[in-house]
Amino acid sequence: MDQQAIEQDVTERVLASFENTKDPRLKEIMRSLTTHLHAFIRDVRLTEAEWDRAIAFLTGCGHITDDKRQEFVLLSDVLGASMLTIAVNNEAYGDATEATVFGPFFVEEAPEIQYGGDISGGMSGQPCWVEGTVTDTEGNPVANARVDVWEADDDGFYDVQYEGQEIAGRAWLRTDADGRYGFWALTPTPYPIPHDGPVGNMLQATGRSPVRCAHLHFMVDAPGLRRLVTHIFVEGDPQLEIGDSVFGVKDSLIKKFEQQNASTPTPDGRVLDRDWSRTTFDIVLAPENA
Amino acid sequence: MDQQAIEQDVTERVLASFENTKDPRLKEIMRSLTTHLHAFIRDVRLTEAEWDRAIAFLTGCGHITDDKRQEFVLLSDVLGASMLTIAVNNEAYGDATEATVFGPFFVEEAPEIQYGGDISGGMSGQPCWVEGTVTDTEGNPVANARVDVWEADDDGFYDVQYEGQEIAGRAWLRTDADGRYGFWALTPTPYPIPHDGPVGNMLQATGRSPVRCAHLHFMVDAPGLRRLVTHIFVEGDPQLEIGDSVFGVKDSLIKKFEQQNASTPTPDGRVLDRDWSRTTFDIVLAPENA
Repeated sequence: MDQQAIEQDVTERVLASFENTKDPRLKEIMRSLTTHLHAFIRDVRLTEAEWDRAIAFLTGCGHITDDKRQEFVLLSDVLGASMLTIAVNNEAYGDATEATVFGPFFVEEAPEIQYGGDISGGMSGQPCWVEGTVTDTEGNPVANARVDVWEADDDGFYDVQYEGQEIAGRAWLRTDADGRYGFWALTPTPYPIPHDGPVGNMLQATGRSPVRCAHLHFMVDAPGLRRLVTHIFVEGDPQLEIGDSVFGVKDSLIKKFEQQNASTPTPDGRVLDRDWSRTTFDIVLAPENA
Repeated sequence: MDQQAIEQDVTERVLASFENTKDPRLKEIMRSLTTHLHAFIRDVRLTEAEWDRAIAFLTGCGHITDDKRQEFVLLSDVLGASMLTIAVNNEAYGDATEATVFGPFFVEEAPEIQYGGDISGGMSGQPCWVEGTVTDTEGNPVANARVDVWEADDDGFYDVQYEGQEIAGRAWLRTDADGRYGFWALTPTPYPIPHDGPVGNMLQATGRSPVRCAHLHFMVDAPGLRRLVTHIFVEGDPQLEIGDSVFGVKDSLIKKFEQQNASTPTPDGRVLDRDWSRTTFDIVLAPENA
């Protein structure tokens, strides 16, 4: 056999080994994974030293991962695999709001708040009033939709990244009969993803910024409509020019955050002792099986 | 943008993010990895639940890996990625002996033995006399080549898999002036790779055997010649029909192991108290930069 035939023979034998897989979907995935993994090795003519480095890299990712740190999610994020999976599973539908990456910082135990409540839980940052509507793609308001929101403080950390910190910077609320929601949060600021591990080393070696553009996370659920996982980004954030380290930005998700003087009364009729900002995010949900 | 353009746009942005990589080889690898990883996700239309499973699988591999257990090497092995890397890096050259997988069980501290020495270190199994020559591809004997050999016992375990076990089942020796070597080992027997972890679960879910065909490991080094990492396999081993779990078998590496009665004197003139076997493996090394 010539060299090409020898290499092809390895691939054929691995593909054949999955012939007896009972679950047809698992069989499809394993055969496709094998095909693409082998094509990568052949295309770059991977050396044995590089293979060693790859094994050590994955081992490092595994060893730094615990119940608070998920290096494999970071890896998927910085390779755009997370964002591509989102794109594959949230096909564009009419004027439905675009989805973006979920990220590793959602937690189930966030508290419920009422319209006008505050998600910050005392975390540091500039107060930000966020309001909008939830509608379907025909413009009908969606009452009682569940809106989960979460974000980092202005030091760039989520509550779960602080030792012993109580839940903060996250909450959920319901839309009213007109599909409206409104709450106090913090004006989002850019922050780096955790970059003291293997993924950070890779970003450094490839000249990439670990910084995420400033954003506020949303997850919106309503019966009969497709769950939306997304962010809003801050117009004018300089990191938008440099690029988001996890490729989460969509033009349609960049929103104006209007700076307000401390003397300007808030939408709920208060006067704060500091400047604040406000933004509007009108959310359109696709049908469930779109 | 239509759906295909949206997905392609994610891939393009990730490829562009590696533009500033200083090391051209790293840039090539990261761009190729991105291309093939994204093609896999698009081809199978990976669901978000499947992505979750993949992250959990990799995390499980990381957490079971320690200084004695290397699940990522196993994963590479059972996906044929190790064997393909070997093939890419050891292109066929004349009648040079074919290479196969290195495996995770080599250790640096194996003892030196002389011609006719015993590598078993008291591990259980049938005695096996192994002899042969080391030559270059022009047929010249290679004197003083270093021949490392290692194997499992007849329970299917290497020394390093036993708690507190001394080094056994491994050694190295030098060829003599005529390029000859000879030593006592154990007749190889089939054994499963460690399959109580994520990789074992994957093999089970895909209906694959975790068993490796019976084999004896060789690594041969001599100045000016290409290092050879290989195995010999046992003609008639029924596992050869079922298939080797890591795709390491090459026809040229299957050797006759002749069974001998206890009454047959050994090549070094002894009479053993039990049956034994013998085999011959003549090794041909390619030039260093072939």
